[in-house]
Amino acid sequence: MAIGEFELIDRYFRALGIARPDVALGVGDDAAVLELPAGARLVAAVDTLVEDMHFPRGCDPRSVGHRALAVNLSDLAAMGARPAWCLLALTLPHADPSLLAAFADGLGALARRHGVALVGGDTTRGPFTVTLTALGVLEGAEVLRRSGARPGDLVFVSGTPGDAACGLAICQGRVAAVPPDDARALRERFLYPSPRVELGLALRDLATACIDVSDGLAGDLHKLAEASACAVEIDVEDLPVSDALAAVVGLVRARELALAGGDDYELAFTAPADRADALRDRAQSEGVAVRAIGRVTAGSGVVVRHAGTVIQVSPAGFDHFAG
Amino acid sequence: MAIGEFELIDRYFRALGIARPDVALGVGDDAAVLELPAGARLVAAVDTLVEDMHFPRGCDPRSVGHRALAVNLSDLAAMGARPAWCLLALTLPHADPSLLAAFADGLGALARRHGVALVGGDTTRGPFTVTLTALGVLEGAEVLRRSGARPGDLVFVSGTPGDAACGLAICQGRVAAVPPDDARALRERFLYPSPRVELGLALRDLATACIDVSDGLAGDLHKLAEASACAVEIDVEDLPVSDALAAVVGLVRARELALAGGDDYELAFTAPADRADALRDRAQSEGVAVRAIGRVTAGSGVVVRHAGTVIQVSPAGFDHFAG
Repeated sequence: MAIGEFELIDRYFRALGIARPDVALGVGDDAAVLELPAGARLVAAVDTLVEDMHFPRGCDPRSVGHRALAVNLSDLAAMGARPAWCLLALTLPHADPSLLAAFADGLGALARRHGVALVGGDTTRGPFTVTLTALGVLEGAEVLRRSGARPGDLVFVSGTPGDAACGLAICQGRVAAVPPDDARALRERFLYPSPRVELGLALRDLATACIDVSDGLAGDLHKLAEASACAVEIDVEDLPVSDALAAVVGLVRARELALAGGDDYELAFTAPADRADALRDRAQSEGVAVRAIGRVTAGSGVVVRHAGTVIQVSPAGFDHFAG
Repeated sequence: MAIGEFELIDRYFRALGIARPDVALGVGDDAAVLELPAGARLVAAVDTLVEDMHFPRGCDPRSVGHRALAVNLSDLAAMGARPAWCLLALTLPHADPSLLAAFADGLGALARRHGVALVGGDTTRGPFTVTLTALGVLEGAEVLRRSGARPGDLVFVSGTPGDAACGLAICQGRVAAVPPDDARALRERFLYPSPRVELGLALRDLATACIDVSDGLAGDLHKLAEASACAVEIDVEDLPVSDALAAVVGLVRARELALAGGDDYELAFTAPADRADALRDRAQSEGVAVRAIGRVTAGSGVVVRHAGTVIQVSPAGFDHFAG
């Protein structure tokens, strides 16, 4: 790196996020030393963003920094864990100061919002790639797994999936002539997703299973169904679709994107019907809308209905949509 | 990935390393859930290996898997921590089954040797890059920092630094016509470094400061000196140099490589002189040689002496060697 690895770390990453009293030793030694609360368990997730695969070349580095942490906080949220620390492995072709400043700014703002301290990392030269490890704390016995759904449970999703996929298409110039306000709102949903950390914490004693929606709602529900050895049946007409998304691509395409778009970082979860009101209340108090979109049944896989007809959805997304 | 991310994880990475009872939830959910012993602290390190930067193109993927874990275990060793878990972020241009099998084999063998379980990860498509996060456990109050060296302490190093740098040069065909047995031994030291985990654990109540030697002994001692606000003085004639290295490059160049070569993954540490015998005994019982190479003094930086004359070493390595 042109400015030197140590100067780079000092300038951009040494005090990133918040200062936490449980960091016995942070950035600057061979490894970080961290103190968990007595009786708490550690929750750990890692995700990589590769330029051209997970974000377009020329994407605002502030967004890349934000998303590198957001996608991992979303994984912790899906376990009902409270985020605490992160480690950053950043690979760059060269140490571009304005890129680094914006990247650190995006990562740091989200870290502060969720009480996370950056405690370690590595900077290397190579193609622009970001790998972030997020560490969180799980207090008490509850943990939200993918595997707890039972026949009869309702299926819920937070927020309005599909927005981010459309936002990415707008960023890439693949969707033209959209209302500017809607375009801006959808782009933001791709560039600055809000990991549902508080919702995950609120769900711990209510949900029976939970997964974060990162690869498309239908595909992620398929994983939840498989882990739970159940089937999930959802109705296209119950999918929450944002006004902006419907305005830009129309309702049919909006529902396709809600089911298979990806990059949403919402939570999909299951719970017995008699907890639905409590769930909605808690989600509302966390500022997130949740919607019941179907139910868990005996069987396997994901069944998607539209106007009473079963339509085909593969784990990878849509094969066909009979809208 | 051609064979699909989930099949890839199932086939190569689901049961990698050892099965640990403290893994409440491993590979297969949104994040891993891990149980620390009561009162223990968590130690976390991350390092990235980029093709062409940290290993040559065409390098045996078994070695890449080994080194990805080894470089991180070396960081944990330098803290006196016991390795427990790891997370793997693997980026590959395409899912090559023979590469994946060899990579997983190299990583798995070292993980089993040190009692490590792979508990999570991410696989993405892109230029061959490996980021591994190692998590370990620190029991008791002791932690080996870089910052504890005091004037009067002796300076020690384990093993024979310089071998790995020569091994890399042999792998790359930059050193020709070497005795085949020596060449093989030196190549192995680059391809399959032995992280000094047991030595790190043994040093916890003896050493005053410790760092892992990854960027070259002189440069890493400079970091230790800086963190400790002291100077380190070493004598070139005290450097441990392997017979193989001296045979291949001669004694003068061997000492240069021992001081500035890099990729050694040995430990450099300091301790009061009256603990030297105890240190050597413990190291010997762990099967590692340690050698006193100098002492800590008031001042700053690293002073290297040869036959009574001070020679110049910059933090980045050699500027000049008056051999």
